[in-house]
Amino acid sequence: MAIPVPVSPLAAPLPELPPLAGVRLSAAAAGIRYQGRTDAVLMEVAAGSTAAGVFTSNKCPGAPVDWCRAALKGGKARMVVVNAGNANVFTGKAGRDACAATAAAAAKLAGCPAKQVFVASTGVIGEVLPHEKLVAALPGLQEGLSETNWEAAARGIMTTDTFPKAATRVAQIGDMPVRITGIAKGSGMIAPDMATMLCFVFTDAKIPADALQTLLSKGVGGTFNATTVDSDTSTSDTVLLFATGQAKHPRVPPADGNAARNRFLADFARKLEEVLLELALKVVRDGEGAQKLVKIDVTGAVTARSAKRIGMAVANSPLVKTAIAGEDANWGRIVMAVGKAGEPADRDLLSIGVGGVWMAKDGAVVPSYDEAPVVAHMKGREVEIAIDLGLGRGKATVWTCDLTHGYIDINGSYRS
Amino acid sequence: MAIPVPVSPLAAPLPELPPLAGVRLSAAAAGIRYQGRTDAVLMEVAAGSTAAGVFTSNKCPGAPVDWCRAALKGGKARMVVVNAGNANVFTGKAGRDACAATAAAAAKLAGCPAKQVFVASTGVIGEVLPHEKLVAALPGLQEGLSETNWEAAARGIMTTDTFPKAATRVAQIGDMPVRITGIAKGSGMIAPDMATMLCFVFTDAKIPADALQTLLSKGVGGTFNATTVDSDTSTSDTVLLFATGQAKHPRVPPADGNAARNRFLADFARKLEEVLLELALKVVRDGEGAQKLVKIDVTGAVTARSAKRIGMAVANSPLVKTAIAGEDANWGRIVMAVGKAGEPADRDLLSIGVGGVWMAKDGAVVPSYDEAPVVAHMKGREVEIAIDLGLGRGKATVWTCDLTHGYIDINGSYRS
Repeated sequence: MAIPVPVSPLAAPLPELPPLAGVRLSAAAAGIRYQGRTDAVLMEVAAGSTAAGVFTSNKCPGAPVDWCRAALKGGKARMVVVNAGNANVFTGKAGRDACAATAAAAAKLAGCPAKQVFVASTGVIGEVLPHEKLVAALPGLQEGLSETNWEAAARGIMTTDTFPKAATRVAQIGDMPVRITGIAKGSGMIAPDMATMLCFVFTDAKIPADALQTLLSKGVGGTFNATTVDSDTSTSDTVLLFATGQAKHPRVPPADGNAARNRFLADFARKLEEVLLELALKVVRDGEGAQKLVKIDVTGAVTARSAKRIGMAVANSPLVKTAIAGEDANWGRIVMAVGKAGEPADRDLLSIGVGGVWMAKDGAVVPSYDEAPVVAHMKGREVEIAIDLGLGRGKATVWTCDLTHGYIDINGSYRS
Repeated sequence: MAIPVPVSPLAAPLPELPPLAGVRLSAAAAGIRYQGRTDAVLMEVAAGSTAAGVFTSNKCPGAPVDWCRAALKGGKARMVVVNAGNANVFTGKAGRDACAATAAAAAKLAGCPAKQVFVASTGVIGEVLPHEKLVAALPGLQEGLSETNWEAAARGIMTTDTFPKAATRVAQIGDMPVRITGIAKGSGMIAPDMATMLCFVFTDAKIPADALQTLLSKGVGGTFNATTVDSDTSTSDTVLLFATGQAKHPRVPPADGNAARNRFLADFARKLEEVLLELALKVVRDGEGAQKLVKIDVTGAVTARSAKRIGMAVANSPLVKTAIAGEDANWGRIVMAVGKAGEPADRDLLSIGVGGVWMAKDGAVVPSYDEAPVVAHMKGREVEIAIDLGLGRGKATVWTCDLTHGYIDINGSYRS
């Protein structure tokens, strides 16, 4: 079913992933859709672990997203069950039943309430998930749980991803080191049918669920939510963050001491954002047909929110993305995309730069600009675009990839 | 510079275009960018003609758009000067001077104020328009003015359009026939650099400028503004409507009798909308790389505005458009696009149909649906998608084309 796609030229290697206290993982071949590869992943976190999550803004979310949203209200986690090949989206009551049955079976194995089991699915949409295959695989998955199975888990959640995606950092909390490790799959919409972006991040820090949720919600703004491959928001996007509490750092200050808590978690927040950004950029690097990673810095907008909207309008413009694929520093298309964003912009104050060279300033081309370094920059794997609105102090950075024949090949073929 | 592109498989023939009282046209080769073809068009309307216009919502509009917006305040017109090959966008003071100089020269020839001259440009962005070439061509253009030059004008404004676009209708005003004829160019962004959508519509009816503007503003809502090729809003989009007042129908009721005026102009409004829709669909039929024309009917939304937004989210989804190119009735992607629109939607009330067959209903696939007629429908040149939200009575229809390798070929190549 899947089209053989070569590994992305932008692929990033898997980092070394040491054990993280309180996390065990395993992967197995449950035969849900793919043959001859792992497609089911179980992730166990220590009793007492807290959880946070952010989910797709799509109004037609998959059944697993509904399940996770409800489960998250408890703030506690023990198990995560993930399958690849079937997204369990738009499957009605059968989809809800599949989530409940899977969670119940995993809960029984773990000896925990079903609401401490999180489920996620990725793959084809609109087909009923054969959850009995997943349930049947659970005992074997539990037996296989190990602290060292990070790569197996990162591979087991892939659909047509061309490389596994993980990131890890060490942060300081109260002078004690804690680790943050995450895995992710997807590239916006990389599967031939309907893909999903899934990301699971773990830490051994001991952080209350409300603080964890605040950190995650804030962290995705400038990372996952600042990237786009093709503007199509999946029905299954899910980022879950679990804290096992196994590290020996001092207690996190209570929520009513917000300033103290923020100071206490400042390094953790920074490193969490680094992990999220590295994972998000790995997803973009595996964007369908991507040949170039594109960074867009917007400055001088009226607000940060306005800057981000302008950046996303540029990042989602098919004309900008095809120009980048053609290695054409076509700043006119960038002007167009800035203007169509619907945000405050004044043509005669606008500046556009590529690869560090300002090509257009104050509403007209820079007469003396040297095209040679710009052309050389465009031929590289990473392209940097700078946009200054000249209006205020709002700024934002967003990332995307180019739009190539590969995207049409992957998405224009019949499902099976 | 332009890539040789075969005529669109969706091309529609040029209709017969009889003379329209009070309108004369001509085209000439001014050598602004293209060689060996006409690239300058002059259109003259009788003294006393009224004018209406709608323009791009892009915040970085071209200098000709600024000029037309200002000229329109007078509500009167005598001349329209159009050039192809250079859009006169993001050209600073030089661009404003080019508009003023061109309008002044045309006004001198016509013996009218410069504010009764409208200018429009289409083609490459960011290069100063060599308006002296355009001005030099004006006397010859004036000599060549003729009532029969509609096709020459429709061809002279093309950039990389693959066929000329025109539409004509006869409407009744107070039992008298009046004619409405329009020409258009573009396909969203068909030129390799930065294209524009230009449309010029003429009538011999005698309609005050304010009434004309109301008709036009209303008319574009369900026509031009309900179409999309690639979601990229040009900096130059312009629709101008001129009424020469040569027809002998009774006087249009004054504005303070709005209901009477509306009744009086009802047939004209209907026929104008038909002309605008035919021209808009011809632009979509010439969409970059288009192989299929796609009609999306949205019903059951909370409001008409919401229905249109949902329709446009589907029409702009790269995943939906590549699926259509692949002749894949991938309703899961349509669900995704409905959900990402940000408008009220309830997954469990949503229905999706293709080619008259409901494939998904009430939050799940229709178990008994017959895929054979759907597959056959997808293989045709015109694809119809139906989306019912099941929430209210809001409805809208929008049109787009599929996304194919042709789009990447056209837009991913270097400018020169």
